[in-house]
Amino acid sequence: MTVYSELMAFQRQTEALAQIMGRMGWDARTVMPRGANAQRSEEMAALEEVLHARRTDPRIGEWLEAAEASDDVAAANLRELRRDYMRNTRVPARLASELARLAPLSQTAWEEARLAGDVAAFLPWLKQMIALRREEGQAIADGGDPYDALMADYEPETDSETVAATFARMRPRLVALREAVLGAEAPAALTGHFPQEGQLRVSRRLAEHFGYDFTRGRIDLAVHPFSSGSGTDVRITTRVNVEEPFNCFYSTIHEVGHAAYEQGVAADHLLTPIGRGVSMGVHESQSRIYENQLGRSRAFTRWLFEAMVQEFGALSVKDAEAFYAAVNRVNRGYIRTEADEVQYNLHIMLRFDLERALMRGQLEAEDLEEAWNTRFEQDFGYPVDQPAHGVLQDVHWSVGLFGYFPTYALGNIYAGCLQKSLRADLPDLDAQLAEGDTSAATSWLNEKLQRFGAMRAPRATIAAACGFEPDELPLIEYLEAKFSELYRL
Amino acid sequence: MTVYSELMAFQRQTEALAQIMGRMGWDARTVMPRGANAQRSEEMAALEEVLHARRTDPRIGEWLEAAEASDDVAAANLRELRRDYMRNTRVPARLASELARLAPLSQTAWEEARLAGDVAAFLPWLKQMIALRREEGQAIADGGDPYDALMADYEPETDSETVAATFARMRPRLVALREAVLGAEAPAALTGHFPQEGQLRVSRRLAEHFGYDFTRGRIDLAVHPFSSGSGTDVRITTRVNVEEPFNCFYSTIHEVGHAAYEQGVAADHLLTPIGRGVSMGVHESQSRIYENQLGRSRAFTRWLFEAMVQEFGALSVKDAEAFYAAVNRVNRGYIRTEADEVQYNLHIMLRFDLERALMRGQLEAEDLEEAWNTRFEQDFGYPVDQPAHGVLQDVHWSVGLFGYFPTYALGNIYAGCLQKSLRADLPDLDAQLAEGDTSAATSWLNEKLQRFGAMRAPRATIAAACGFEPDELPLIEYLEAKFSELYRL
Repeated sequence: MTVYSELMAFQRQTEALAQIMGRMGWDARTVMPRGANAQRSEEMAALEEVLHARRTDPRIGEWLEAAEASDDVAAANLRELRRDYMRNTRVPARLASELARLAPLSQTAWEEARLAGDVAAFLPWLKQMIALRREEGQAIADGGDPYDALMADYEPETDSETVAATFARMRPRLVALREAVLGAEAPAALTGHFPQEGQLRVSRRLAEHFGYDFTRGRIDLAVHPFSSGSGTDVRITTRVNVEEPFNCFYSTIHEVGHAAYEQGVAADHLLTPIGRGVSMGVHESQSRIYENQLGRSRAFTRWLFEAMVQEFGALSVKDAEAFYAAVNRVNRGYIRTEADEVQYNLHIMLRFDLERALMRGQLEAEDLEEAWNTRFEQDFGYPVDQPAHGVLQDVHWSVGLFGYFPTYALGNIYAGCLQKSLRADLPDLDAQLAEGDTSAATSWLNEKLQRFGAMRAPRATIAAACGFEPDELPLIEYLEAKFSELYRL
Repeated sequence: MTVYSELMAFQRQTEALAQIMGRMGWDARTVMPRGANAQRSEEMAALEEVLHARRTDPRIGEWLEAAEASDDVAAANLRELRRDYMRNTRVPARLASELARLAPLSQTAWEEARLAGDVAAFLPWLKQMIALRREEGQAIADGGDPYDALMADYEPETDSETVAATFARMRPRLVALREAVLGAEAPAALTGHFPQEGQLRVSRRLAEHFGYDFTRGRIDLAVHPFSSGSGTDVRITTRVNVEEPFNCFYSTIHEVGHAAYEQGVAADHLLTPIGRGVSMGVHESQSRIYENQLGRSRAFTRWLFEAMVQEFGALSVKDAEAFYAAVNRVNRGYIRTEADEVQYNLHIMLRFDLERALMRGQLEAEDLEEAWNTRFEQDFGYPVDQPAHGVLQDVHWSVGLFGYFPTYALGNIYAGCLQKSLRADLPDLDAQLAEGDTSAATSWLNEKLQRFGAMRAPRATIAAACGFEPDELPLIEYLEAKFSELYRL
């Protein structure tokens, strides 16, 4: 047995236990009886302790020092393991356990503060969380940038300077596009009552049409849609609002995109470090291209229009073209998770700048609300009306997720690049999508990207799939073209 | 921190991980996508290895040596831990891992052999399993009886000599009762078509009427009904045969009985060694008294008759009395899991004698089928017609469960004792049951037995609840009275 295979055997068990942890999270959010909450927390804490001990086991350090990569796969596995091991061993156990203890309490405080619209009540928790994550960022960075160190948990090998420069180029064009769109005449929204059972039938058809493999997954209901698991057990959830069926349908397509990446990794990599999506940004590129560039395209909405008429009878919009406009309607709004393709990235940029300043000590918790409100009005053109629509809207910071937000926008940027290349390779795409047939597009994505899992670093994954170095231009050009046409700008 | 509290803190995490293991088993048998099978085996094997390492951790031995019990609860926890630790450390790691590896392969071989009716094909697997479990029994027994040592995994502090003597007293009376019943005129069976949704509605009402707490549990469908989990997350499953609704209804009541024991243990004992049912026999006493002495009573079937008429319309049996007879109809049959109250224990005694002889080296795998068939004809009065109806019918031996079978009959015996005492304390029971109200009976069981979990050893648990030392007479007298009256003997 080589050192490498000894390391991989140990790691394989860790990956298996991590899958169980994910399944427990799925269970808690879908099928768990509500009275089991406290017991479940204790169960998951026990498993987390086992995982933490394995991930910081000193033998990993010795194995990593001695292991040699005999091929590309081994090199990629060692790369992933080295980064994780270094990260995990740099964080003092005391700090890791303080963070684990603080997160659920802080999240509860945030939930209450958001309901009450009381930023001050949340401030003490936020300050503690900022202090601990700053300390963690510094520990991992080891002299480097603490925010970059935290971001690397979600988007490795990407520095925030580059991200900031990209966002700075995008921002004025997106602000201008948003202004133009909101100044133009809005198309009619879809109205009506869409019963849950009908929505779930259409949702299931959508999943099938986007290639979701039900023999290795399932769809359930949850408050917040998510995808969970790797390999042969990748489950998704959706939700239903009987007044607003697009919420259900596009949540489903989005999560099918995430699941396609996990289901699509080559079986050889099952339960190995590279046997999963390489980063949150690349993951989001899959969910976004499924949801937006494919799912919200004029061609595909033509099929969805027919599917909805079949399920629900005549709709409030008269034809497929009006339906396409309704799907892509841009609304004045405050909430990131409800934002359209135009405004979504502006939400992210705002959060990115603020959280980066927080982690670098250039902004303090006390000044966060004002900074948020000022920036929001600059970029969106109207003021925040209440904290629940502003600084208190997202769960992320309450549980310490600093460095996560930019991956949403990186996903959009990557999706823009992938669509450019995909459309060049598939000239008949729109004809296929209009028939509800996504197979050429999803096969292209699997062949070019999904099957490799974490073989390559995030940017390299996108570059290899697209055939060019990713930047923001394909996304911006796609958005400008799509919405200029839709809104006759 | 005392040695005892240190030990209990360690153990609490082990219990929490064991709960996760149970939940993964539930998941695999209810909601898991079928393509996830191989991955799930690997995940569960990884968790099993973690659990095994914790259960044989040498620190437990040191703690147990130094720990002192300050009260009854501590004494009971230490008693449970000492027995488990001694058992686990006496089994060589090599043997434990050989058994773990053999079980799924042997089970698959059994499934195939059963379908093909080919005993010879299963023999090599059975021989290996017998050899390994004999070795394990000897290792645990440390000079004592290997079968008793194995039985103690399911029914601690009970010796097989006593069980054998009890069964020997029961057997002639049960054989005589079976002969008399099958010689008498049989009542009409219930016939008809009972759609799944209706059965599940009645099943849910039954669970509610027997006090199942849905805030700490849920009901799903599975091929074989089971109950799983402890404390605040105790889930049950049932199954539906549209021609035979009693299968669904009495499976549900049976599993609710198991679940009531786990849900009913005092909350103080959550995730401690005594925070669960003390043995399989005592567990079965709860499921059986719910299912049979309460659920199949004339009084309760009166309520069920009305509930079924309400759900399904007029039935093939004309009134509540004919319905009661149909529920308790005794059929000629071969299969333990389909057996009625009269014949069930005869199935168990047959298996007990054979497996005890196998483990003691008094019977070999090659002679098992003939021994089975001879004994079956003696006790049931007709020959086995095919191996799937005989020696190949149960999964137990294929996965090494020698010593488990007697707990089913012990459960029946204990249920008989409990019902005697319960009826003495609750003179109005039948009037309540006829209204579908089991609360006095289930509260009695909780108060007298369930809430104590594993505080007392199995027989002591029953004796304390009943107020007398348990023996087989209450069960035999109950069966003779019930079926003599039903069959006008």
